[in-house]
Amino acid sequence: MTAICFCLTGFWCCCHWAQPPTDSSSHKRLPWTGWEFSQNQPTPRHYLLPAKNGEEPTMQFLLEVVDILTNYVRKTFDRSTKVLDFHHPHQLLEGMEGFNLELSDQPESLEQILVDCRDTLKYGVRTGHPRFFNQLSTGLDIIGLSGEWLTSTANTNMFTYEIAPVFVLMEQLTLKKMREIIGWPDGEGDGIFSPGGAISNMYSVMIARYKFFPEVKTKGMTAAPRLVLFTSEHSHYSIKKASAALGFGTENLILLSTDERGRVIPADLEAKVIDAKARGCVPMFVNATAGSTVYGAFDPIHELADICEKYNMWLHVDGAWGGGLLMSRKHRHKLCGVERANSVTWNPHKMMGVPLQCSAILVRERGVLSGCNSMCAGYLFQPDKQYDVSYDTGDKAIQCGRHVDIFKFWLMWKAKGTIGFEQHIDKCLDLSHYLYTKIKGREGYQMVFDGEPQHTNVCFWYLPPGIRDMPDGQEKREKLHKVAPKIKALMMESGTTMVGYQPQGDKVNFFRMVISNPAATRSDIDFLTDEIERLGQDL
Amino acid sequence: MTAICFCLTGFWCCCHWAQPPTDSSSHKRLPWTGWEFSQNQPTPRHYLLPAKNGEEPTMQFLLEVVDILTNYVRKTFDRSTKVLDFHHPHQLLEGMEGFNLELSDQPESLEQILVDCRDTLKYGVRTGHPRFFNQLSTGLDIIGLSGEWLTSTANTNMFTYEIAPVFVLMEQLTLKKMREIIGWPDGEGDGIFSPGGAISNMYSVMIARYKFFPEVKTKGMTAAPRLVLFTSEHSHYSIKKASAALGFGTENLILLSTDERGRVIPADLEAKVIDAKARGCVPMFVNATAGSTVYGAFDPIHELADICEKYNMWLHVDGAWGGGLLMSRKHRHKLCGVERANSVTWNPHKMMGVPLQCSAILVRERGVLSGCNSMCAGYLFQPDKQYDVSYDTGDKAIQCGRHVDIFKFWLMWKAKGTIGFEQHIDKCLDLSHYLYTKIKGREGYQMVFDGEPQHTNVCFWYLPPGIRDMPDGQEKREKLHKVAPKIKALMMESGTTMVGYQPQGDKVNFFRMVISNPAATRSDIDFLTDEIERLGQDL
Repeated sequence: MTAICFCLTGFWCCCHWAQPPTDSSSHKRLPWTGWEFSQNQPTPRHYLLPAKNGEEPTMQFLLEVVDILTNYVRKTFDRSTKVLDFHHPHQLLEGMEGFNLELSDQPESLEQILVDCRDTLKYGVRTGHPRFFNQLSTGLDIIGLSGEWLTSTANTNMFTYEIAPVFVLMEQLTLKKMREIIGWPDGEGDGIFSPGGAISNMYSVMIARYKFFPEVKTKGMTAAPRLVLFTSEHSHYSIKKASAALGFGTENLILLSTDERGRVIPADLEAKVIDAKARGCVPMFVNATAGSTVYGAFDPIHELADICEKYNMWLHVDGAWGGGLLMSRKHRHKLCGVERANSVTWNPHKMMGVPLQCSAILVRERGVLSGCNSMCAGYLFQPDKQYDVSYDTGDKAIQCGRHVDIFKFWLMWKAKGTIGFEQHIDKCLDLSHYLYTKIKGREGYQMVFDGEPQHTNVCFWYLPPGIRDMPDGQEKREKLHKVAPKIKALMMESGTTMVGYQPQGDKVNFFRMVISNPAATRSDIDFLTDEIERLGQDL
Repeated sequence: MTAICFCLTGFWCCCHWAQPPTDSSSHKRLPWTGWEFSQNQPTPRHYLLPAKNGEEPTMQFLLEVVDILTNYVRKTFDRSTKVLDFHHPHQLLEGMEGFNLELSDQPESLEQILVDCRDTLKYGVRTGHPRFFNQLSTGLDIIGLSGEWLTSTANTNMFTYEIAPVFVLMEQLTLKKMREIIGWPDGEGDGIFSPGGAISNMYSVMIARYKFFPEVKTKGMTAAPRLVLFTSEHSHYSIKKASAALGFGTENLILLSTDERGRVIPADLEAKVIDAKARGCVPMFVNATAGSTVYGAFDPIHELADICEKYNMWLHVDGAWGGGLLMSRKHRHKLCGVERANSVTWNPHKMMGVPLQCSAILVRERGVLSGCNSMCAGYLFQPDKQYDVSYDTGDKAIQCGRHVDIFKFWLMWKAKGTIGFEQHIDKCLDLSHYLYTKIKGREGYQMVFDGEPQHTNVCFWYLPPGIRDMPDGQEKREKLHKVAPKIKALMMESGTTMVGYQPQGDKVNFFRMVISNPAATRSDIDFLTDEIERLGQDL
C-alpha cells in the first residue's frame, strides 16, 4: 500500500507497510548490556511483533524495558536514592536534555523509546521509596507489581466471563472473602471493583437511592421527594462530588459536626435528621467514615447504625482508607459495627499496599447493585451463551469496559495470606505509634489533636525556633501557616522525603504524616523529623 | 513482634517479621531456566524487597515473571496457539490441577505464585491473538505493553503535579493534540482521561447540565426544569446508564430513529425536540454516535449540529469507537462536523490499539469541566505550593485518585508517530473491506444491511445449508436466531477464533465482525469464514 497525500490536520505520509529484515545474522545483540538492533541505524518500531520475524527484536526490546524497570525498582528501595528530582512544569515542558514531551507525526526509534522510558522515571516521583509518605497510597509491592505486569499482558476487560473467565471468578471469590471479613453472614451480598474510592462512594449513593426510590432510574430525581444525605465535615470530598453528579445537589448533603478528634457526633446526626424532616426533606443516606483522610478518624458506626435504623436510612461506611484495618485482629475493633452497614467502600490500594487502582464497593443486599445499573445491552450480555451467564457481571457497573483490578490483589493475597496483610497493617500502626510517642511533648512540635491517633495519621505542627516563643495570636498563626508549605517545598527541592500538609477548618497548615509503606522503618521516621527540623530551623 | 490470638474472622497467626537469609551463597540460582531460591524449600514472599538483602531474590523473581509473560506474548502471536482454552465457571471454581482460586490465611511460596501466574494466563483469553475479533478492543501492542509495565512500576496517581509531574504534562499535551485533530482552533479547550467510554459519556452529560443549569450542582435536579436528552436507538447503552445515574431518568432519554444503516435521521431529532418542548420539557443534550457499537454507523454530525444550534442544545459526539478514524486522512471525513461538537468521547484503547484502559473526554469550552466537578479539597489542592498549581488537574475529575492511563498512549504515539496510527487504521479498514467484498453475495451469507460498512464492523448472518432454502418466515427466523450462538459456542470450545454476535431490534442473532487488531491479516479473515462454515455446516 502506498499513498501520498495531504491532510487537514497537517501531517503527511508515504506509507509502506514495513517489512522486517530478512537477514537476522546482521543484527548485533547485546541483551542486558545495552541493546542495538543494527549498527548506527535507529531501529523502527515496526520490527516488533506482529511483524514477521518480530519475535527476537520483541523479546530483546521487552527485556531492555525490564532492565530499566528492575533498575528503577532496585534504586527505589535504596535510601541513598532521592525520592524525586524536582522540576517546575515549565522546565519539563521546555524539554530536558534529550527528553522532549511533544508528539510528532513521524515515529521515533526504539532506542529513543528506551531513553523516553528512562527519562519518564527519572523526572517522576518514587512513590515506593521508604521515605515517601505523601499520600495514603505508598509503597511498591513486588508481587502486586508482578500482578500488574501480568494484567497488562493479558489486556482484557471485566465485563464478561467470556473474555475474562479467570479474573471474573477471582473477583467474585475475593469480594466474598471481603464480605466475610466485614462480617456479613456467609459473605453473602454483592459488590464490584471500581476505578477508585470516589467512584465506590458514588455507587453507594446510587444504590441507596435505587433501594428507596427505584423509580428514579426511569423517571429521574423529580420522581422522588427532596432527598438529603449526611456525612461528616471531615469526610472525603467524594461524597460531595457524588451529591453534585447524581443530581442531589451539594446543598442537600448535610455536614455533621465532629468531636475534636474528627469523629462524627451521633447526636448531631439525629438532630439534623429531625430538622430535615421538619423542613419536608427525606433523610436517605448516611456516610460514616472509617479512617478520615486527614485525621484518620473512625466514626462510631454502631451509634450511627442505630439512628439509620430508627429513621430508615441507608448506612454507608467509607472505609477507603480505614477498611484495611479489618484485616488486623488488633485494630479491627475501630470499625466495630461495620457489619450493620448497607454498603462499604474499601480500597486495597491504600492501607493494604496493593498497586493503584484497586477499590471495592461491597453491598449487603444482593440484587440492588444490578437492579440499579443494569441496562441489558444485547451485544455484550447475550442470554443464549453456552456457559452460566450469571458470571457476566458487567451490567452491574456504571462502566462498560472495566479494567482488571483484581489480579494483583488476588496474587498478593495468595502470596501474603490473610496474616500477611495483618502483619503489614499492624506494623504500620506500630510505626505511627512510634512517631506519635516521639514527637508528643517534644520541643518545637504541637499535636493537632490530643491522644493517640486511631489510624496511621499523625497530624502536627512544627514550630521553628523563631516562632516557638511568640505569643499566641493572629501573627503567630499567620507565620505558622506558612511553615509547612515552606518546609515541604524545600523537601521537594532537596528530594529527600515527602509528607503532606493542609489546613483543616480553622486550623492553619499542619503536617499530616501517614504510613502505609511496607518499606518504612523507625529510622525513616527519625529521618523525617530530622529533615523537618533541619529545613525548618531558620524559618 | 510476636502475637498469638484468635480472631473474629477465623484466622490466627504467630507473627514474626521475617528476616532474610544471611548466607546468600546457599542459594541456587537458575535465572531464565527455572528459578529456585533454595533447594527443596519453598521460598516465602518476605525474602523480596523491601527485605534486607532482598535485591537479588527480587530481581530473580521479577525475571521469572517476565519469562512467563514474554513466553505468553510470543505464543499469542503464533497462529498455532489457541485463542482460548475454554472451561465452564464451575470447572475453574472446582480447581484445575494445581490451580486453586481460593484465598487462604497462610502465604503461598513464590514458586506457587509463579505457577498461579502461568495458570491464570493458561485459562484466560488471548485478546492479542491475530484471530481474536470478539471486542472493539483487541491486539497487544508491544510498545503499549511496555508503557503499562512502566506505569505500574511508577505506581502513582494523576491528581496532582506533585506526585505525577511527567504524566500530568503528557496528559495535557496529548489532550491538546487530540483537540487539534478534532479541529478546535489551536487545540484549545479542556479534557481528561477517564476509566472508559461509559464514564467519558457520563462526563459529557454532567458538563452539559452544568453549562445550562449550573445551579443543579448545589441545588440538585429539582432546580432545573424537566430536561430531556436525545440519542440514537443504535447508540451505546452508556448514555442510558448516565441518564439513570445522574438523575435524569431513562424515560427522559429519547431514542432517535435511524436509517437502515443505523445512522440517526436528523429530521427525527427535530420532530422529537419540537414534541418535547410542546410537552413542557427542555431539550438539553444530543449524543451523536461516531461509530456505533454494532453497525459501526456514523451519525451525520453537521445536520445534528445545525439542530443543536437552532434549539440551543449541547452536542456530544461519542467517538469511543470511531474517534480513531480522525487519525486517517482517508476516513476522517466520516466524522465531518466533529469540530462543531461541544464534547467528544474518544477511546484510544479501541481503534488505536492502546492497551486497556485509555479513554478521553474532550471539551470545547475551557473551564466548564472544572466548574462542574471541582470541590477544592484542601488536603490535595493546596494553593500555597511552590509550583504553578494550575497543573494540579485532579479536581476536574469525578474521581479522586486516578490511574495513569496516559503513558502507554503517549509512548505509542512517540513510537508510531501520527502516521503510524493512520497506517494502522487504514489497514484495519482495508481488511474489513476485504471481508465485506468476500462475503457479499457469497452463498450462505447474508448482510445485515446493504452497502459498504462505514467502520470495520461487518454484520452478517451465516445460513447453514439446512436453513438456506427454507422459505422466509418465523420458523426460519427461529432457526437462524440459534445459529450464531451455536457456532460461537463451538468456536470457543475449539478455541480457534472468537467473534461477537447479537440480535438488534427485530433482527435475529447475527455475527458482528470488527477489526482493530494490528496482527490480523487477510489469511485470518479467511480463517474466520472457513471456521464459521466448518462449524456451521451441519446446524
